[in-house]
Amino acid sequence: MKGTGYIQIYTGNGKGKTTAALGLALRAAGHGLKTYIGQFLKGQKYGELDSIKKLSPLISITQFGRNTFVHVSQNPDKEDIEKANQGLQTCLKTMLSGLYDIIVLDEVNVALYFKLIKEKDILAFLERKPKNIEVILTGRYAPESLLAKADLVTEMKEIKHYYSAGTKARDGIER
Amino acid sequence: MKGTGYIQIYTGNGKGKTTAALGLALRAAGHGLKTYIGQFLKGQKYGELDSIKKLSPLISITQFGRNTFVHVSQNPDKEDIEKANQGLQTCLKTMLSGLYDIIVLDEVNVALYFKLIKEKDILAFLERKPKNIEVILTGRYAPESLLAKADLVTEMKEIKHYYSAGTKARDGIER
Repeated sequence: MKGTGYIQIYTGNGKGKTTAALGLALRAAGHGLKTYIGQFLKGQKYGELDSIKKLSPLISITQFGRNTFVHVSQNPDKEDIEKANQGLQTCLKTMLSGLYDIIVLDEVNVALYFKLIKEKDILAFLERKPKNIEVILTGRYAPESLLAKADLVTEMKEIKHYYSAGTKARDGIER
Repeated sequence: MKGTGYIQIYTGNGKGKTTAALGLALRAAGHGLKTYIGQFLKGQKYGELDSIKKLSPLISITQFGRNTFVHVSQNPDKEDIEKANQGLQTCLKTMLSGLYDIIVLDEVNVALYFKLIKEKDILAFLERKPKNIEVILTGRYAPESLLAKADLVTEMKEIKHYYSAGTKARDGIER
């Protein structure tokens, strides 16, 4: 990437954190920039996986979770912790490879909140960010220590949500 | 689309409103759903225009603005008003055609704020939304009357922005 890459955080209880990162990757691809997306906690089928294949090699995506998101909050175990830490290592190697302009750590804030990865490890990751690479961290519960390191923080805030109760996530919209 | 489509609004002063809508379109495309994006006020080159060509015919995009965004706030004129109103008509026809599952009116809240389109016209548009179509309105300054009609409202709130002063929008990231 030409110029300086920043650290961006999308957090908060509202919609649009992951999709904003996806949209940014889509926009970047239009400029020939390459984005790597690592998805923490996620192992299940999301619509973006198929679309992104069409944008290969400009966008790549890897999942570091099991096949359910809810699972972890209830009962994180050794496998969850291993997968998340291996994911962080993969993101680090990918960032340092120089093959990508933008590195997205999707839901990494939640992985941190559930203590699957250590705060010091994500801070160490950010310390190694090359100047010309943009890093985007998404997920609720971004801690103060991460916000302090970020150049840009956006809170997605839920103002109104008519269908949270009793309505399942819809294929193609929420997943 | 199977099931019920909702009205979503992404508003607020933070980043990620347009990109969240783009990301949602990308995800939807992975499920075979079709998205039409009408961009109000925008006529300039954005990265997403090129990427979206690769996802055609699942995602289509049309711009209803001139080649600069800033222009309008300073000096809206007859051409701006005409373009915006023709844009709204195009969105209505497209929505009623049944060819798309998701209709995005990007920056329409700003077009409303600048009085390029009338509040009653956008409310009339929403009244005609078929049950199975999802409509997404983006842009700062969404008025109360629109929020009242929405099923889901997310405010993108700027918490921290290190580079707003003196740093131009970067190709591939902000545009």
